Amino acid sequence: MKRRAFLRTAGKGAGMAMAALAAPAVHAQASIRWRLASSFPKSLDTIFGSAELFAKFVRDATGGKFEISVHAAGELVPAFGVADAVQNGTVECAQTAPYYFYGKDEAFSFDCAIPFGLNARQQAAWMFDGNGMRLMREFYRNYNIVNFVMGNTGAQMGGWYRKEIKSLDDLKGLKMRISNLAGVIMSRLGVIPQTIPGGEAYTALEKGTIDALEWVGPYDDERLGFNKVARYYYYPAWWEGGAQLALYINSKSWDALPSEYKAIIEAAATHAHVVMQARYDARNPAALKRLVASGTILRPMPRPIMEAAYKTAEAVYAELAAKNPNWKKIWDDWSRFRSDQVLWFRVAEREFDNFMSAQKL
Amino acid sequence: MKRRAFLRTAGKGAGMAMAALAAPAVHAQASIRWRLASSFPKSLDTIFGSAELFAKFVRDATGGKFEISVHAAGELVPAFGVADAVQNGTVECAQTAPYYFYGKDEAFSFDCAIPFGLNARQQAAWMFDGNGMRLMREFYRNYNIVNFVMGNTGAQMGGWYRKEIKSLDDLKGLKMRISNLAGVIMSRLGVIPQTIPGGEAYTALEKGTIDALEWVGPYDDERLGFNKVARYYYYPAWWEGGAQLALYINSKSWDALPSEYKAIIEAAATHAHVVMQARYDARNPAALKRLVASGTILRPMPRPIMEAAYKTAEAVYAELAAKNPNWKKIWDDWSRFRSDQVLWFRVAEREFDNFMSAQKL
Repeated sequence: MKRRAFLRTAGKGAGMAMAALAAPAVHAQASIRWRLASSFPKSLDTIFGSAELFAKFVRDATGGKFEISVHAAGELVPAFGVADAVQNGTVECAQTAPYYFYGKDEAFSFDCAIPFGLNARQQAAWMFDGNGMRLMREFYRNYNIVNFVMGNTGAQMGGWYRKEIKSLDDLKGLKMRISNLAGVIMSRLGVIPQTIPGGEAYTALEKGTIDALEWVGPYDDERLGFNKVARYYYYPAWWEGGAQLALYINSKSWDALPSEYKAIIEAAATHAHVVMQARYDARNPAALKRLVASGTILRPMPRPIMEAAYKTAEAVYAELAAKNPNWKKIWDDWSRFRSDQVLWFRVAEREFDNFMSAQKL
Repeated sequence: MKRRAFLRTAGKGAGMAMAALAAPAVHAQASIRWRLASSFPKSLDTIFGSAELFAKFVRDATGGKFEISVHAAGELVPAFGVADAVQNGTVECAQTAPYYFYGKDEAFSFDCAIPFGLNARQQAAWMFDGNGMRLMREFYRNYNIVNFVMGNTGAQMGGWYRKEIKSLDDLKGLKMRISNLAGVIMSRLGVIPQTIPGGEAYTALEKGTIDALEWVGPYDDERLGFNKVARYYYYPAWWEGGAQLALYINSKSWDALPSEYKAIIEAAATHAHVVMQARYDARNPAALKRLVASGTILRPMPRPIMEAAYKTAEAVYAELAAKNPNWKKIWDDWSRFRSDQVLWFRVAEREFDNFMSAQKL
C-alpha cells in the first residue's frame, strides 16, 4: 500500500513534468514482475502457448511494465502444486485445470468440467453471464485465489484402448489412466482407475501396465504417439464435454494491482481463452485424419456405457451434494443452468450442426 | 506522426522527471477520444452492450486516457453507413455485422456468416487460428478498415411465420423480411425477400405486408413481440449458424495508436466477443420457454427445405467464385476449413451434445 501511495505521488510528479512540456495527459504505472506457474508442460503447446499469449498481451498492453514470466510444470512447483503455490503466494499466478484439485474439494471441478457437464460454450455462458464467476470467486476466497477463465479444450476424446470396448462387461477390470470424478464413476463401472503422469502414460500403455488411457484430443494425443500402442480411439470423453482452464491469481497480488492492470489482465485472459479454443478446433481435424490414416480405429463410446456412466454420475453428484455444502451450493445453480442450456442447444444449434454433419463436404 | 514523435520525447522527459524522484519506471500515454458508430440500436442490449463493454475495458485499462464513446445506429451515421464512415474517417471505429455490406462486395459475409457456414466456434477457429483474420485483413485494406472479432449470436432462429411451412411449396410467393445472401437463396426457392428495418418489422408482419421475418433468437425476438403477430417459430436459421460481429477501425486511426493501446483494443474486443456470446447463450433459454408458454409453436425447418436451400447455396457460391475474385480467394480457404470443421465436430462435440440433448434434465 505504501508503495502504491508513493507511485501516485510519483505519477503526479511526472504529470507536472509533462504539463510543463505542454504534453497531453500521461499516466504513471508501476513496473511489476510476476511469475506464472503452469500445470502443463511446454509440449502441450496449445495450452502452454495460451499462458504465453496471455503474458504477451499483458506485456504489450503495459509497454513492458508488467512482465509475467511463464514457467512450465515442475519448473517452479509441480503440476499439481500450483493451487497451493498461488494460495501461499509462492507465485503470483498459475495456469491450471481446476479439476486437478478435486482432492481438496470436489467443487473445484465446476470451474473446469464434470462428467456430463456443460460444453465449452455453455460453460463460458455460465461463467460470463450466469452465476458461475460469482460462485467460483466466492468458493476460491478460501484459497486466496482470484480466478479467470483462460482456455477450453472443447469436447475431448474418450481415450485410447488396446482392445475394443463393446459393452459394459469390457470395462470390468480394465486398468485405465483416468482420475478424479471420471475415475470415481469409472470405478463404479468396474474400471480400475490409475493415476499416471502424462509423461509416463505412453510407456505404461505400451508395456500393458494399463489397458487404456485418456488424454485430450487428436492434436495432443498424436504428439504423444498413443496411436502406436493402442488401436481403438473412442469418442467422446463423457467426462469432459468442454474442459475449461483457469488463471489463478493470489488475492493479495491481485488487490495490489492498479485498476488499469486489473482490466488488462481480465481482457488478456479472455483473449488467451478464445485463442486456445481456436487452436484446438483448427488443429484437431488434420491430426484426426492423420491418426485414422495411420490405422487408428475410431469408435463412438457404446450407448449402454454412456447411459450407465450418466446414471452413475448423477448418483455421485447427489452423494456429493449431501456431504459437501460447497458442492451443493454450486451444483444447485449449475444444474439448473445445465438444464436450460441443454434445452436451448437442442433447438437451433443442434439442428444446424446436425444438418451440416450430414453433408458430404 | 509528428504528434507521436512529440509524445515519445515528452515520455522521455517524464521518465527523467521520474528518475529524479527515484520512482519506478512509468510510461506516458496519450489521451485519445474516439467515436464508435454501432449498426445496432440500444434495445439490442446483448449486441450494443458488448460495444459498451469493449469501450469500458479500453477506458479501464488506460485509466480513462483512451475514451471511446459508443453511439447507437442513426446517432452519428445510419446503421448501414458505418463501413463508409470508418472508411472515410468520419468515425474512428464501428460495431457491425459485416454481411450488411454484401452489396459492396459479397466477400464481406465471410467475416460474419454465410448460409450453411461455420458455427460460432468454428468461425472463431477460422479467425483466430486459421487464415480468417489474415484474409479478412487483406480484403479490408481496400476499405481502410482494420477488423477485429467482437461477438457472435450463435445459431439463430429461422424466424416467425404466420402460416405453417410444411414443404417447399409453402415458400412460393412468401413475402419474408430477409436479405443479402439468404435473400438470394430464398428468392430462388420462390420467396419474395423484403428489406425492412428491424424497427418496422413488427408492424409489417402484423399488417400482413409480409408473411414472415427473421430476426435473431428468443432473447431478442421476444422483446420485439413477434410472438404476438406470428404463431410459428422455426429453427434453425440455416443462413446464420453463428453470426459473428466485427469491430471496424479506420486504418489511419489504428496506425496512429501507441502499441500499448493496440494490444488493449485487441484483448478488449475479444473479451466483449465472449461476453456477448455468453449473454445470448445464458438468456435465450428462459426467453424461449416464455415464448412457448405464450403459445408460440416451435418447429424444425422441414428437411426438404434445408436440403434445397443447401444445394442452392452451393450453386450460388460457385457463381460468386466465378465472378468475384475476392470471394474466390477467401472461399477456397474457408470452404476447406469448413470441411475439416464439419468432420471434426461430427466426432466428440456432436456425440457429446447429442447425448446430452437426449437426457431429461
